[in-house]
Amino acid sequence: MSEFLVQAGYLEFLLFDWLRVGKHSGADRETAGVILDMATKLAADSFMSCYKEADCKEPCLDENGVHILPEIAAALARYADMGLFGASFPEELGGMGLPQSLALAIYSIFASANISASGYTMLTAGNARLIARFGSDMQIETFARPEIEGRWFGTMCLSEPQAGSSLGDIRTKAVADGEDELGARYRLTGNKMWISGGDQDASENIVHLVLAKIAREDGSLPEGSKGISLFIVPKILADGSANDIAVAGLNHKMGNRGTSNCLLNFGEGAGAIGWLVGAEGQGLAQMFQMMNEARISVGMGAAALACRGYRHAVHYARERVQGRPLGIKGGAPVAIINHPDVRRMLLQQKVYAEAGVALCLFCADLVDQPGEDAEALLGLLTPVAKSWPSEFGLIANDLAIQVHGGYGYTRDFDVEQLWRDNRLNPIHEGTAGIQAIDLLGRKILNADGRGFTLLRERIARTAQSALSLPSWKAEAEMLMAYWDKVEATVEGVRAMPGTRPFDDATLFLRAFGHGVVAWLWLDIAIAAEAMDERRPVADMGYACRFFMRTELPLGEAWLRLVDEQSDIARSVPNEVFA
Amino acid sequence: MSEFLVQAGYLEFLLFDWLRVGKHSGADRETAGVILDMATKLAADSFMSCYKEADCKEPCLDENGVHILPEIAAALARYADMGLFGASFPEELGGMGLPQSLALAIYSIFASANISASGYTMLTAGNARLIARFGSDMQIETFARPEIEGRWFGTMCLSEPQAGSSLGDIRTKAVADGEDELGARYRLTGNKMWISGGDQDASENIVHLVLAKIAREDGSLPEGSKGISLFIVPKILADGSANDIAVAGLNHKMGNRGTSNCLLNFGEGAGAIGWLVGAEGQGLAQMFQMMNEARISVGMGAAALACRGYRHAVHYARERVQGRPLGIKGGAPVAIINHPDVRRMLLQQKVYAEAGVALCLFCADLVDQPGEDAEALLGLLTPVAKSWPSEFGLIANDLAIQVHGGYGYTRDFDVEQLWRDNRLNPIHEGTAGIQAIDLLGRKILNADGRGFTLLRERIARTAQSALSLPSWKAEAEMLMAYWDKVEATVEGVRAMPGTRPFDDATLFLRAFGHGVVAWLWLDIAIAAEAMDERRPVADMGYACRFFMRTELPLGEAWLRLVDEQSDIARSVPNEVFA
Repeated sequence: MSEFLVQAGYLEFLLFDWLRVGKHSGADRETAGVILDMATKLAADSFMSCYKEADCKEPCLDENGVHILPEIAAALARYADMGLFGASFPEELGGMGLPQSLALAIYSIFASANISASGYTMLTAGNARLIARFGSDMQIETFARPEIEGRWFGTMCLSEPQAGSSLGDIRTKAVADGEDELGARYRLTGNKMWISGGDQDASENIVHLVLAKIAREDGSLPEGSKGISLFIVPKILADGSANDIAVAGLNHKMGNRGTSNCLLNFGEGAGAIGWLVGAEGQGLAQMFQMMNEARISVGMGAAALACRGYRHAVHYARERVQGRPLGIKGGAPVAIINHPDVRRMLLQQKVYAEAGVALCLFCADLVDQPGEDAEALLGLLTPVAKSWPSEFGLIANDLAIQVHGGYGYTRDFDVEQLWRDNRLNPIHEGTAGIQAIDLLGRKILNADGRGFTLLRERIARTAQSALSLPSWKAEAEMLMAYWDKVEATVEGVRAMPGTRPFDDATLFLRAFGHGVVAWLWLDIAIAAEAMDERRPVADMGYACRFFMRTELPLGEAWLRLVDEQSDIARSVPNEVFA
Repeated sequence: MSEFLVQAGYLEFLLFDWLRVGKHSGADRETAGVILDMATKLAADSFMSCYKEADCKEPCLDENGVHILPEIAAALARYADMGLFGASFPEELGGMGLPQSLALAIYSIFASANISASGYTMLTAGNARLIARFGSDMQIETFARPEIEGRWFGTMCLSEPQAGSSLGDIRTKAVADGEDELGARYRLTGNKMWISGGDQDASENIVHLVLAKIAREDGSLPEGSKGISLFIVPKILADGSANDIAVAGLNHKMGNRGTSNCLLNFGEGAGAIGWLVGAEGQGLAQMFQMMNEARISVGMGAAALACRGYRHAVHYARERVQGRPLGIKGGAPVAIINHPDVRRMLLQQKVYAEAGVALCLFCADLVDQPGEDAEALLGLLTPVAKSWPSEFGLIANDLAIQVHGGYGYTRDFDVEQLWRDNRLNPIHEGTAGIQAIDLLGRKILNADGRGFTLLRERIARTAQSALSLPSWKAEAEMLMAYWDKVEATVEGVRAMPGTRPFDDATLFLRAFGHGVVAWLWLDIAIAAEAMDERRPVADMGYACRFFMRTELPLGEAWLRLVDEQSDIARSVPNEVFA
């Protein structure tokens, strides 16, 4: 089964031959190889084995709370036994001390095996890291440590029924309730929607990180996002009693069903007990650490699903015999991998799927690097890492179905589920539209330009190396020409009046992402060419050339659309949507 | 509920103000309006009401055969009571004598209400029409008439487990078994896969139209598609006994679940009794009539699903309050229909969905027109009518989910099901890849050029009218420039060696489709402008301009990709797909 997962060999190539993560993270290639192989085995044995079942038997709610598939709980227990919840945490907190890049590589394997089972691990690690960074020593000891050990799981409670993208409008209220050894204590009241892992029966306790507004003396709440604070609200209190948190309902999703998704009511009784993390009003800023980590993980999950679909499609295309080469009558039919249209669909999946993995690893590696440069570049690339694999990984899964023909539309094969699972990714942790505004607004137009300058420098460096290699000269020139266009588009957009720059932000995000991916493919192809062994070199070279020649021209078309902004969507009267 | 269906008013506009179907079909606008309204009421009351349930309770198989959702059977009975199975059949056969265009318009309403329940009607009408055209009088009386009355349903049995796209490889065998009043009788043996409505308990009998090869004296079968003949094989024989047809299994699909989909074994016993239709070896040619009709219906189904999703998205965007216009802090949040990115997603759905309906009606109207010109144009446009709405209608449904945010990913809303249902359309009745080869090969490169010339003439005529209207001059020029590029691409492709012309046939199909749709939008916009009432004019104008400015440039990028054909997919070694 492991042939369908994100391949350890590819991850090792990216980490050590391309990114050379050993330099700044101290990661050792041999150890990493052993860990990736162990992860592959566990992922195949315990996670992939219940992939289909996780879809058929979704979580259910009764008077004792939410029950998830026992096989998922068992898989997570084995994951905890291997210490993987603590993969990227320092040893003094009970972790394995691995760099983020390697931890994310491990995650990609599990995500490709069973994305919804892996969701619990991703959220728990992000939750613990936030507490480890902003919490008090006592909070870290009490809440983060059991998460790092994999005994307690974590959630992020941001959205409310009326406030998803618009977090400033949350209404969950926190009222001061004294102080204890865990810090300033509050009573919370409010409804939180879309809480992944909001309840389940796989961990001993659940650590909710809840955004809420501290009530003024008159009981009113501050307006906007500046009034948001962050609270730790455990499901079960230290004395073993249940906190005042009710599961008001489960969301029944199209895919990604192994992860329970809850509507939680905090404080139906005396108020749920929670402790303030960091300072008042810092909630959103602190939560952004977890959200940014989650965004890269979402992108990686989308890429992992794309890889999984790609590998199923290749497998099927090799086995399935149908038709003959065009123009040839009679004779034995051939495997469909020989039909040009099928090959095109496979190559397209490959360049989307494997680039998505590379992009997210690149970002995780930036997390591991100290300094403001890495931080600026990471800030710029995070919306891309979230959205590009979510959009193009989904297209890859669509193509995987198409390669399977009618069989791909049945539940006897996995590709339809991969596609359904992946459809969540352009929505959660900030929709594509939100990422687009983040990229164009916060990270480009309203930023100091550092991130963008750094990116252009990195791209120029790659192009420079490529220009010295005769075989890559043309691609280097295409890449530089593309980025000149991106820069011109940015200047054009900057000159637009009012909020017009944002009308086509989503298109800009897509075009920007294609430029980033083209750069990564060239960078990877060069890295592969510098290696001794022959195979990976050819692989990466074909993929790079295919992306440059068949995808980059589409990016140029999107950029032109942004340049020549149509005001029709903005100006069309609402009655037209009748 | 009818607000979510394909709108009768839009259909009436297309049929009578745009296509002016009254001219050649004798259809009367007032009568048509009454019928469309009746259809809307029945569709909302009986078909849409069980849309969700059709998904949750898929057909099941026991020792008595396949059972479908009773609500679907009841809806189909009401449909039969209204005489709608016979909508487009002549009155002497018990039909209503409506033109194909109006019949397809009616179908679009039902397809938007419940695509999988409507599938039975579409297959039954196509089946009866094939028998009515090629069958003997006795065959028509015996089999087509009860279908036209809606008492018996029909299927098309083409694919086998090893032969889907490659029908020449079918192995179902027919052995001569004498003759009776229904014609030359045969015994059939073989396995047929993907048979929609292959068994069900809603009709009194099932008329299977089966492709099979007549065995030579030595028992061997002729090779290739020329040896295929067509047989009528009823589920129940005239004496009330069961024919030798076993349901070997049901396919469990991702969507479109209300239509049963079966693996049928013919002749596990003495051989299933069937009667030859037309002459030996004419099976595929005859079946193409049904397939071509089904292809246009598939396109219409995809467009109808897109319309339904669009209308849900508009409804949600008007109701859902979230966020404020960019740049405005504080104040009350607004309905999301006011956000430019949401408006863009709505408009994109509109231009895909409503153009899909128009394209398929245009084709159905060609069916109604006598003469070789109409036939040539219809042949050229059929692969476009099948594939363009299937591809872009699916994208429209994806956008409908995105407008709904997290809610769109739950089964509490219909948009996720619409997306799943629609995913079948690029696969069945010939995959997108098969349509692409049909368009570029049979209909363009290997044709006498008549269809393409006629299309260009029609486009030039529309552009000519538009050039005389100052408001449409720019669009007319864009359209003509685009089609000059299409023609140049065709000439370039024609000059490519060997089978290379087909490497990017799928891309060509997509670009060709965008050109056709751009033409239709302009033609529709002009027709709308010629009307008295103001509203539809503006609607169509915005949609036309939006498509021209934001979609046609993408088509140009696809054409360039075809022009500059990349040979990478063809030349990449198979080991790269490792």
